[in-house]
Amino acid sequence: MAEAAAPRPSPERLTAAFAALQALLGDRFSTAVAVRAHHGKDESYHAPFDPDGVAFARSTEEVSAIVNICADHRVPIIPFGTGTSLEGHVAALQGGISLDLSGMDRIVSVNPDDLDVTVEAGVTRKALNTHLRDTGLFFPIDPGANASLGGMAATRASGTNAVRYGTMRENVLALTVVLPDGRVVKTARRARKSAAGYDLTRLYVGSEGTLCVITEVTVRLYPIPEAISAAVCAFADIKGAVDTVIATIQQGVPVARIELLDDVQIDAINKYSKLDLPVAPTLFLEFHGSKAGVAEQAETVEAIAKDNGARGFRWTTQAEERTRLWQARHDAAYAAAALKPGAKFWATDVCVPISRLTECIVETKKDVALSFIPCPIVGHVGDGNFHVAMVVDPTRPEEIAEASRLNDRLILRALAMNGTCTGEHGVGYGKLDFLVAEHGEAVSVMRTLKQALDPLNIMNPGKIVRL
Amino acid sequence: MAEAAAPRPSPERLTAAFAALQALLGDRFSTAVAVRAHHGKDESYHAPFDPDGVAFARSTEEVSAIVNICADHRVPIIPFGTGTSLEGHVAALQGGISLDLSGMDRIVSVNPDDLDVTVEAGVTRKALNTHLRDTGLFFPIDPGANASLGGMAATRASGTNAVRYGTMRENVLALTVVLPDGRVVKTARRARKSAAGYDLTRLYVGSEGTLCVITEVTVRLYPIPEAISAAVCAFADIKGAVDTVIATIQQGVPVARIELLDDVQIDAINKYSKLDLPVAPTLFLEFHGSKAGVAEQAETVEAIAKDNGARGFRWTTQAEERTRLWQARHDAAYAAAALKPGAKFWATDVCVPISRLTECIVETKKDVALSFIPCPIVGHVGDGNFHVAMVVDPTRPEEIAEASRLNDRLILRALAMNGTCTGEHGVGYGKLDFLVAEHGEAVSVMRTLKQALDPLNIMNPGKIVRL
Repeated sequence: MAEAAAPRPSPERLTAAFAALQALLGDRFSTAVAVRAHHGKDESYHAPFDPDGVAFARSTEEVSAIVNICADHRVPIIPFGTGTSLEGHVAALQGGISLDLSGMDRIVSVNPDDLDVTVEAGVTRKALNTHLRDTGLFFPIDPGANASLGGMAATRASGTNAVRYGTMRENVLALTVVLPDGRVVKTARRARKSAAGYDLTRLYVGSEGTLCVITEVTVRLYPIPEAISAAVCAFADIKGAVDTVIATIQQGVPVARIELLDDVQIDAINKYSKLDLPVAPTLFLEFHGSKAGVAEQAETVEAIAKDNGARGFRWTTQAEERTRLWQARHDAAYAAAALKPGAKFWATDVCVPISRLTECIVETKKDVALSFIPCPIVGHVGDGNFHVAMVVDPTRPEEIAEASRLNDRLILRALAMNGTCTGEHGVGYGKLDFLVAEHGEAVSVMRTLKQALDPLNIMNPGKIVRL
Repeated sequence: MAEAAAPRPSPERLTAAFAALQALLGDRFSTAVAVRAHHGKDESYHAPFDPDGVAFARSTEEVSAIVNICADHRVPIIPFGTGTSLEGHVAALQGGISLDLSGMDRIVSVNPDDLDVTVEAGVTRKALNTHLRDTGLFFPIDPGANASLGGMAATRASGTNAVRYGTMRENVLALTVVLPDGRVVKTARRARKSAAGYDLTRLYVGSEGTLCVITEVTVRLYPIPEAISAAVCAFADIKGAVDTVIATIQQGVPVARIELLDDVQIDAINKYSKLDLPVAPTLFLEFHGSKAGVAEQAETVEAIAKDNGARGFRWTTQAEERTRLWQARHDAAYAAAALKPGAKFWATDVCVPISRLTECIVETKKDVALSFIPCPIVGHVGDGNFHVAMVVDPTRPEEIAEASRLNDRLILRALAMNGTCTGEHGVGYGKLDFLVAEHGEAVSVMRTLKQALDPLNIMNPGKIVRL
């Protein structure tokens, strides 16, 4: 990795910074090997890079003080939430400290009348929804992992509900951030829309810790629908399943979730989650609305599915069955990894215009069918986004090489279809070159932004853009 | 105006730039007084500032060449669409050229299967919807004026449909922009979501010509709903009307439009648009969905309205009646201006969290009731956004002073309620100080962005941030 060879802080600088951090944080600053190792790796196959130390912050003011110390001594800072990212976002490529925000887990203010909530960055999406349970409101963005809101904002996360409710891009109203010089800035107020100047909120959403440390997040909430129903539908072939999704979206059915799992993935989750679904390309769906509205949506989609070779369309309003279904969906990547002992998953993440989705998935299926690596496919196909969860043993170079080859081909296929190399996982240090392939000259604008807003290059260096 | 005293290009620079522009554009470069005067003013009360010349571009390549010439000679460039902005956005505060994009009016590509369209910046929203009429799709963003898509993107416009469909922030998928050094950049591909690097699309949406010239816009389209119905409902008092809106939003009714017009505004549009609505606080509503869904929504809102003192709730599925209603709504500002001969309107634009909306409007009503200026109120209240269309004669300093006083008080009231000084009109040169009051230290980040991305300060100088 070229990034690993980048300049690291000298031992003198680290020593000075560490002394100041210890004075500030006491035993909430750690250089223990196990703590460092935990903070240098995420859930992906990417090589971990341990930070030199880990600082556990409790408040925005403390984050500001930590950033000031690191800026004084030119020590890199890598924000850390739950470590569930997938492109090596938390790897300390150039050393420095991991800034663990999981202790910043206060719900700052719930505003049920305004349908919004402000939380500290370390609050996880499940903790938030648990807290909200008596308000009649919920926070829909659901990337599968129980990620922190700060991490979800930093990576522009989305997931299964995005087809109806949007991604973090659409749902973050405002951020409190600490700039690389320690200043604290609020990017917006709580009005639901604003034309007041450059959109700093959207600039920092998806910036992956490279421009600032996000310490508070204000997000939109939604009334829990009067009725929710879920459906499962198997298809004769993958084309029928994907064409059903496309027709559903094109007809404007406000489906809340519409997820594809191919035969390989269904087989994996049957084993992992003890289900007995028919091993075939399958859609998992969810409908939100009034009782009549939900029934109407389900009927419309059932008719579309029948036209596309559906083998039965089973729907339910039972909460338990729904929960079981979505838990299985969320465990899809772990189910994939469980196909082989000691394996991890390498999740691809392309997203294409929906008109090209069938072609992209069918071609990809052909490609991976010829490979020796198990390649379940699962996807948020309502957005044109799907993942191949390639099951690899990271210790076997031939498997990594093969997965890399398949990933390259998939991304070039998606880019040729006017798609993106990453729909929701982000760039981290795993997709630096693909970002250039995708954006061309626009990457130079991103580089200018990075240099202007983080002139010392201490904020998660080596991620998103190379300097 | 401090801005007017800012450095202007020397006559030598202008002469050199004009010679090059004339060589490039022939008679599509003009220094005629009438042409210049047309391009230095918008629809607002703000003082116009004529540019030194006007360049009419026909393509992205031509825009790039024009920008290169202006960069070479340090001549300011002010992009111009239809001139319907409201905060002096097109005023040539420091001279330079107006870059008229209205000739860039090609529909580049309609992708009905992907629910998106790419247009040149000069295409207006009405022209776009006319072009789309046989596709079953429509573009919902509707700021009232028949603005260009480039201008709407540049000002982060929204309007009556935003409560359901979002603003330009949510609906622009990608932009083609010319940077201040003439480079052409595409900000994104056509995938509906992406986590590939910094969100340049959102950075340029709302940048008001200060960072780039937008030359192409890709936006989302929506299926024309199976059923549309509209409703009109008068209330005993303004509190009842606003509380109806709040309850509707909080109950998650997916209303497409929910607009407030106060008694003064109803009186004005009765006269201007030849209607005979009861002179009382009134909501105009529109529902989109299936036939059953639309009926269900209307019934729900009718029940809420009754609880809040509604005096009758009249709904219709007739297209003609609907069109007449919304045309009257769109003409509200002109109806206001028509209250006094020779008058113009000064449109305020605050947006507050919806829980504070009743209080904000009621206090504002009290305030303006004591003024000698007619002050109709109209608003996209589903978003918490409303306008006081203050009717002023720009030649009478005492009227401008009074409107300014009312505007100051309104904005401070909204900021104290965690709102914004502009929900959809933008900053231009009319709200520079309010931006600072609203954002504080965050404005310094905006200034850093401006300096990094437009180091020569030739892109619409004097707007959004002072340097």
